[in-house]
Amino acid sequence: MAVGNVDFPEMKAVSGIKLGTSNAGIKQTERDDILLIEMAEGSTCAGVFTQNAFCAAPVHVAKDHLQNSPRWLLINSGNANAGTGQQGMHDAHASCSFVASAVAGEANKVLPFSTGVIGENLAVDKISIALPEAVSNLKQDNWNNAAHAIMTTDTFAKGASVVLELNGQPVTLTGISKGAGMIQPNMATMLGFVATDAKISQSLLQKCLSQAAEQSFNRITVDGDTSTNDACILMASGCSSATEITADSDAYQLFSSAVINICKRLAELIVRDGEGATKLMRISVEQARDNAEAVIVGKTIAHSPLVKTAFFASDPNWGRILAAVGRSGIEQMDLDKVEIYLDEVCIVKNGGRAESYTEAQGQSVMNKEEILIRVVLARGTASQEVLTCDLSYDYVKINAEYRT
Amino acid sequence: MAVGNVDFPEMKAVSGIKLGTSNAGIKQTERDDILLIEMAEGSTCAGVFTQNAFCAAPVHVAKDHLQNSPRWLLINSGNANAGTGQQGMHDAHASCSFVASAVAGEANKVLPFSTGVIGENLAVDKISIALPEAVSNLKQDNWNNAAHAIMTTDTFAKGASVVLELNGQPVTLTGISKGAGMIQPNMATMLGFVATDAKISQSLLQKCLSQAAEQSFNRITVDGDTSTNDACILMASGCSSATEITADSDAYQLFSSAVINICKRLAELIVRDGEGATKLMRISVEQARDNAEAVIVGKTIAHSPLVKTAFFASDPNWGRILAAVGRSGIEQMDLDKVEIYLDEVCIVKNGGRAESYTEAQGQSVMNKEEILIRVVLARGTASQEVLTCDLSYDYVKINAEYRT
Repeated sequence: MAVGNVDFPEMKAVSGIKLGTSNAGIKQTERDDILLIEMAEGSTCAGVFTQNAFCAAPVHVAKDHLQNSPRWLLINSGNANAGTGQQGMHDAHASCSFVASAVAGEANKVLPFSTGVIGENLAVDKISIALPEAVSNLKQDNWNNAAHAIMTTDTFAKGASVVLELNGQPVTLTGISKGAGMIQPNMATMLGFVATDAKISQSLLQKCLSQAAEQSFNRITVDGDTSTNDACILMASGCSSATEITADSDAYQLFSSAVINICKRLAELIVRDGEGATKLMRISVEQARDNAEAVIVGKTIAHSPLVKTAFFASDPNWGRILAAVGRSGIEQMDLDKVEIYLDEVCIVKNGGRAESYTEAQGQSVMNKEEILIRVVLARGTASQEVLTCDLSYDYVKINAEYRT
Repeated sequence: MAVGNVDFPEMKAVSGIKLGTSNAGIKQTERDDILLIEMAEGSTCAGVFTQNAFCAAPVHVAKDHLQNSPRWLLINSGNANAGTGQQGMHDAHASCSFVASAVAGEANKVLPFSTGVIGENLAVDKISIALPEAVSNLKQDNWNNAAHAIMTTDTFAKGASVVLELNGQPVTLTGISKGAGMIQPNMATMLGFVATDAKISQSLLQKCLSQAAEQSFNRITVDGDTSTNDACILMASGCSSATEITADSDAYQLFSSAVINICKRLAELIVRDGEGATKLMRISVEQARDNAEAVIVGKTIAHSPLVKTAFFASDPNWGRILAAVGRSGIEQMDLDKVEIYLDEVCIVKNGGRAESYTEAQGQSVMNKEEILIRVVLARGTASQEVLTCDLSYDYVKINAEYRT
C-alpha cells in the first residue's frame, strides 16, 4: 500500500558504472535476487553503515574492503547473513572470492551486501552458480533491473536520478534503495546505492555521503528499529568530462545538494513503502536550540504508537502529539510557548488547545494522505524534519505473519 | 483480553484510611467515576509523578499540596484535565475547594488526580454535585468500589493486599492501580494508590516509594509512551499498633520489601491488561555492568514493535531480539559472549543461533501465554527485569478507534 507518487523514474545511466543481475533462487525463484555493480578503474567509493552492534557479517567485510579502492559491489536479497557467527564471516568472504573469480579481480576489492532473513546461513553455492550470468549482463543501462533485484518485502522498486551541470559539464547522479520498515531485523532492511560519474576524492565523497545520510536515511523511521544490515554506498566513477570536485568549491556545494536530494528521495520512498502505511507524516520541528534537540522531538513523535495509530484512524487526537513532545526529554521547555500545527491548522498554543481550533479543521487535515506536523518550540533557530508513516492493522499483519 | 490470573484479591481494610465513591457522570453514567480517600489526622504521604514535561494540571497541584501534610485524595476518571492550560489549573484548584467544603477541611491538603481524555475541560460542576455522596459513603472497607471508580479503558479492577508483621504487630498494605497502556496520553494513564497503617516519617516513606516505583511501575511498558498524568501515592496512617518504622531498621527492610512487592503486582496487572495484549513477556537482563545498562537493553527489547508482533504471532523469531539488543546503544559489547534464552531454551550463543537450538523448541515456548526472555550480557553482575506485552491487531484497533 504505497503512499502517494512512487513511480519509478527515468534512470539516467552513469558512465563508468555497470550493473548486472541474475536469479540465484536464494529465497524465491520468480525474480532476480543477485545484483553485481562494477565501477570503472579509478572510481572512488564512500559508505555509511548500521550502528547496530550486532551488524551482519557482510557489513564487517564491506567496511573492511572499503579501504581497498573497491571495484565491485555484490548484493543479494532473500538472506541477510546476520546472526550467523563465524560461518557468516566465512560466507561473506566466499561471496567476494566468487566475484573475484568471475571478473578476474581481487576479492578484497569486493563489497558484499545481504538483505533478507536473519539467522540462516547464506547459500553461497547458489550465488556462485548465478554469478556468471550477472557478469554477462553487466551494462550501464540496467538500473531498473538492479532496483528490483534488491527488493525484499518492498512493494515497489525505488529509484531517483538527476543530471546537474558542474563547471559547464553534465554530471549524473542515479541511485536505488530498498526497505519497507526503517527496519525489520528479520528481513534486514535499508540499503541504498548511489552512483555518479563525477570525479571526486574518496575523502570528500565520504564527507558528502555522511552529511547526506544524516539528512535523509537518518531522518526516517517506520518502526524505530535499526537493522543489522543497513548500508548506503556512494560511488563516483570520475568518467564525466567535468573537472574534479574539490572541497569548498561552488561545484561541491551543487554536488552535495544534489546528493542530499537524491538520498532524501530514496529515503522518502522507503517511508512511502512503510509496512502497512496508509499515510506519510512529515514532522517539522522548528525553533529548537540545536539540530539534535529538534531530531529528538521529531523522532519521539514519529515513534509513538499512539500518534501513529491516531493518524491511521484519521483522528485529530492532538493530545497524543502534545504528550509525545512532553516526554521527549527536552530540558526547561517553556510549554506556554510551544505551538503545534497540522498543515496550516494551529492545534496547540499556550500549552493547550488553540482557541481558534475546531475539530472540523483538524478532521479535514487528517483525511489527507500526506500531512505536515509542525512543532514550534520557540527556543532557538534550529529546524529538522523527520519522516514517518502511520501504524495500521497491516503493520501488525505483515510483521506477525512474515515467517509463517 | 487479560493475560493470566487477574482476579481481584481479598482487600484488607487499612486502619485510618477511608474511601468513598460516587457517580459524577463525567464521561459515562453507568458507574462511579469519583473516588475520595480520607487519611487520618497525622498520616504521612509520599508521591511519585510523571516525568512528562506536559504534565497535567492536577499533577502540578498534587505535587504542590504534597508539602502540606495532605489528608484527602480526590480522583476522577473520564477526563485527564491535561492540555487544558490556565483553565485546567483553575479547575484542579476548584476540585480541591469542593472537597474542603464537603469535609470541612483545607483545600491545600487535598491532592487531585484525573485520568481520561486529554484536552477537554474538566466538568467541575458535576464533581461538585457528586462529592457529598462520596463523602457520605467514606469507609475503610471500600477498596473494591475504589478500584472500579478509577478505571478508564481498563478491562478489570486492579488490587493487591498483604498483612505483614513488624516488631510482632500486624501492619497492612493495600493498594489499587489503573492503566491499560503504559500510557495512552489520550486516556491518560497509570495511577496507583497504596495505603498502610504503619507509622513512618514522610521522608522515609518517600524514599521507600521512590525505590519501589523504580522497581515496579518504572519497569513496565505497553507502548513506550509516558502519560501526562502518571502518579503513584503511598499513604501511611500510623494507626497500627506497631512502633514507628525507622531508617536502616529490620522493620524498614521488611516494610520496604512488602511495598516493592505490592507495587510490582499492581504494575504487572497493568501489563496483563495491556491494550490488546495476548501475552506477558518478562525480560530479564542479566550480568550487565550496572542496573541502568540492564534496563536500557530490557526496554529496547520491550519497545520493539517487531519483537512484540513476533510474540503476538507466537513466532520464535529470535533475530528480532538479537537485533534489539544490538541497537540498544551499549558500548563495547562482546557479542560472542551474549546468550539469549526463551524460558529454558537457549536460542543465541556466540553471536548467532545456538547450535543446540531447534525451531520446535522455540515454538513450544512461544505457544505459552507467559514467556521469560533472558538476555545474558556477560559484562558484570547487575540484573533487571522489564515487563511488557505483545502488539496485536487489537492494540491498533483500540487506539485507532478510541475517540470515534
